[in-house]
Amino acid sequence: MGIVHRQVGKDGNFAWDDVEEEAYRGGGASEGSCRSILIGPKEGAQHFAIRYFEIPPRGQSSFEDHHHDHGVVVLRGRARVLLGWEVHEVGRGDAVYIPPNEQHQFETIGDEPFGFLCVIPSKEWLERIQALQGKNG
Amino acid sequence: MGIVHRQVGKDGNFAWDDVEEEAYRGGGASEGSCRSILIGPKEGAQHFAIRYFEIPPRGQSSFEDHHHDHGVVVLRGRARVLLGWEVHEVGRGDAVYIPPNEQHQFETIGDEPFGFLCVIPSKEWLERIQALQGKNG
Repeated sequence: MGIVHRQVGKDGNFAWDDVEEEAYRGGGASEGSCRSILIGPKEGAQHFAIRYFEIPPRGQSSFEDHHHDHGVVVLRGRARVLLGWEVHEVGRGDAVYIPPNEQHQFETIGDEPFGFLCVIPSKEWLERIQALQGKNG
Repeated sequence: MGIVHRQVGKDGNFAWDDVEEEAYRGGGASEGSCRSILIGPKEGAQHFAIRYFEIPPRGQSSFEDHHHDHGVVVLRGRARVLLGWEVHEVGRGDAVYIPPNEQHQFETIGDEPFGFLCVIPSKEWLERIQALQGKNG
């Protein structure tokens, strides 16, 4: 059965019914950063996940470089984003594609938190296809 | 290399640099509905796509029922959504998960267009994993 998570945040903040906001601290992310998994394994999604991240003013996301790709859409605030060796400035509504194995990091600009949706392929599915490919040599 | 599509819409409308807005008419979608593929094959995304759909006032999306799942986040307006045999009302910021093979349709409520991000697993990837599974019996 389909699932609806209602946005219940006040005053420009984002929060969703029946979605837990987790601290997000891996890889050098700034204190106060958080992550909410809107669509993922809990919802039964097998192929992808949609997460909402928020980085506080003067904060930054973890510096990452990994096999899976990211699709990002900004919901609030502004940030510098490092994509490989390039730096771009992004704001509300902008879409960013981060290909596999490209180093990336976001750093909030200004006094508003930087909030964005981030889509990833599911880890289980990536592992499954790798295992199947391995069997087929 | 990473890609940034800047949001360039005015007056509450959404439009992106270097993203084509296409008419969206399949399966009974109302005239004036449109689709913009923010992240997809053109960006090199192999595993998923992020599309933006907009349905005009009094309009509806196509009535669909298919194998792939959808993750939806509403960016503007309000709509009724049919999920299986249930009807929900959704608005800005709400997240909706539509599992595989569940019939679904959106119908705009009110005078503002209903705009939403919709994530799908890539067709090519689904076919590839099905083919690999077939080989392994």
